[in-house]
Amino acid sequence: MNIGVDAMGGDFAPEAAVKGAIQALGYLGEGTRITLFGDQNRITEILLAEGSSVDSFDIVHTSEVIEMGEHPAQAFTRKPDSSIVVGFKHLKAGLIQGLASAGSTGAMMVGSSMVIKQIEGVIRPTIATQIPAENGGCSVLLDVGLNVDCKPDVLFQYGLIGSIYARGMLGIENPRVALLNIGEEPEKGNLVAKAAYEIMEGTKEFNFVGNVEANHLFDQKTADVIVCDGFVGNAMLKEAEGFYSLIKRQGVSSPFIEALNYEEIGGTPVLGINSTVIIGHGHSSPKAIRNMIVHTEHAAQAGIVEKFKEAFK
Amino acid sequence: MNIGVDAMGGDFAPEAAVKGAIQALGYLGEGTRITLFGDQNRITEILLAEGSSVDSFDIVHTSEVIEMGEHPAQAFTRKPDSSIVVGFKHLKAGLIQGLASAGSTGAMMVGSSMVIKQIEGVIRPTIATQIPAENGGCSVLLDVGLNVDCKPDVLFQYGLIGSIYARGMLGIENPRVALLNIGEEPEKGNLVAKAAYEIMEGTKEFNFVGNVEANHLFDQKTADVIVCDGFVGNAMLKEAEGFYSLIKRQGVSSPFIEALNYEEIGGTPVLGINSTVIIGHGHSSPKAIRNMIVHTEHAAQAGIVEKFKEAFK
Repeated sequence: MNIGVDAMGGDFAPEAAVKGAIQALGYLGEGTRITLFGDQNRITEILLAEGSSVDSFDIVHTSEVIEMGEHPAQAFTRKPDSSIVVGFKHLKAGLIQGLASAGSTGAMMVGSSMVIKQIEGVIRPTIATQIPAENGGCSVLLDVGLNVDCKPDVLFQYGLIGSIYARGMLGIENPRVALLNIGEEPEKGNLVAKAAYEIMEGTKEFNFVGNVEANHLFDQKTADVIVCDGFVGNAMLKEAEGFYSLIKRQGVSSPFIEALNYEEIGGTPVLGINSTVIIGHGHSSPKAIRNMIVHTEHAAQAGIVEKFKEAFK
Repeated sequence: MNIGVDAMGGDFAPEAAVKGAIQALGYLGEGTRITLFGDQNRITEILLAEGSSVDSFDIVHTSEVIEMGEHPAQAFTRKPDSSIVVGFKHLKAGLIQGLASAGSTGAMMVGSSMVIKQIEGVIRPTIATQIPAENGGCSVLLDVGLNVDCKPDVLFQYGLIGSIYARGMLGIENPRVALLNIGEEPEKGNLVAKAAYEIMEGTKEFNFVGNVEANHLFDQKTADVIVCDGFVGNAMLKEAEGFYSLIKRQGVSSPFIEALNYEEIGGTPVLGINSTVIIGHGHSSPKAIRNMIVHTEHAAQAGIVEKFKEAFK
C-alpha cells in the first residue's frame, strides 16, 4: 500500500509535513510506503536534516503550490503541477491508495469531487470527524462543514455513511445513529431535522436511535454517530476547538482534554467518494500530520470506500 | 418595582424557587418587592422553615401547576389558575414589572406571545443568553432556541435586539455585532447566513463587524453580540453546558469555568415582547433562581423593553 502526502500542504509546510511523514514511518504497516508530493530539493533537505533516509520515501517532484487564499477551483485548473493536483492524479490512477493533505481544504474538495468523484448513489459527499468521548471511546460527527444546506435525504444518507465509518474505523458493531436536535422528542427541531427524523425513523439501513442534544456530544451515552448539517456541525466542532484552546490557556489538563486536541484526531476524511482522502488542519504540527497519515492508511486498509460502494449499490 | 416569581416552576419547586427568592432579597434594590405565584400554604411553610418573614413577600395563591410534559398552549388554556398563567395576567396588568420562571419553557413562551405580545415591528421575538468571556466580560448570543428556522431579515433584527440588550444590560457602549458563520469571509455560510450578511453589511442600525466563527464564542475578541438561528444557537449553548459538566466531572475548575455554570447566568430573557420575561433552567437551584430574579430586576430597571419599542418604532 502507498499513501500519498502533500508535502507542501499546511501553514508550516514543507517542514511540518515532511517531519510528520518521518514520524509516521514508525506507525505504518510493513507493506506501506509514503509518497511525498512537493519540491524534491526542499523535501530532500528536510529528510537529510532530520537524519532520515531518502530511500524510505517515494518522492514525486511538483513545481507549484496551491495557496490557502486562492480560489480552489481556479487554482486546481491553473496549477496542474501543484502537489495537490498531482497527488489527485496519482490517486485516480491507483498509484497511491489514499491522499492526505493539510493544505487548501477547497482544493482538496475540488479534487475529491472533480477527479475522484462521488460514489454512485451518494447525493452529496461529506466530511466527518471523530469525537473523543469521556469513556475513552470515540464517536463520529458529520457533516462538519461541507454541506451547509442539507436536505433531509442527504442527512439520511449521512446516517448510513456515518454508520459504515464507525463500524469500519472504530470497530463499533451496530453503531447507534442519532440526529442532532434541540430536544429529544421526535417533533423537535427545524424543518429539515423534523423531515429527516421522519425518514430515519424505522429505517433498516442503520440503527437509528432518535434525537440527541449537543450536551451529549462528548459522552457517547446514546449515540456513536451524530448527524447534522455542515453549518451546525462546523460550529460545534469549532466551539470544541475554542474550548480546548481556552482550557489549555487556563493551565488545565486531563487525558480527556488532551484527546480533544485536533493533533490527535488526525484529519477529516472526505466520505462518499471513490477513494480515500483525508484533509488535515491548516495549523498541523508534525504530530498532527503523522496522525493524519496513520488515519489515511487505516481507512484505506479498512476498505471503507468499498463498504460505501456496496451500501449504495 | 415588583418582580413576579413562579414559585411552582422548576424541577425542585417550590422549595428551590422560594429559597432562591429569599436569597434574592439581599440583592434587590430597596424599592423592589417580590411577588410569589403558587400554593400559598406550601410557600408559607418553606418561608417559615427558612426563618424568613412572610411579610417580605407578596404572595398570590394559585391552585394549578403547568407540568413540564404538558402541551404548552393547551395547558395555558386549561389551567387558568396556574402560577404561570396568573403571573402573566399580573404582568399584563402592570401589577408586576417582570416575570421569572424556571417552569415550562413552552408555557412561558405561550404567555409571552399570546398575553404580552411582541413589540410592533418585531418579526419574531427571541431568547438570548449571556456568554461569559475569558477576559471576565460577557457577550450576548441569540437566538438560543426559539426560532429554529430564521429568515435573513429576522437575523438582521436579532442584530439590533442583541445590540440594544448588550448596551442596556452589559453597559457596552457600541456593541460589536457579528454573524455566526463557518468562516470569516463574507461569502461563507449557508443560504440564510449569506443573505443575512448582505443586509447587515453597511447597516447604520447597529455596529456590524462581519462573521465570527464558533471558536471565538468565549473570547469576546471581535464581537459582543453573536447572531445565529435558534437551532445552531441552542446546539452551541448545550454543547457549552455539556462541556461544563464534563470538565467538572474531571475535577477541573477555574473562575472562567465556574462562570459557565448556568446557575451564574440567571436565566434566558425573552426579547422583543412588551414586558420583561425571564425563563430559568428547569434544573434551577436556589442560587440559579436568585440570579434569575436579580437578572429580571436589572432588565426591568434598565428599561430594555422601552428601548426596543423606541428602536422598532
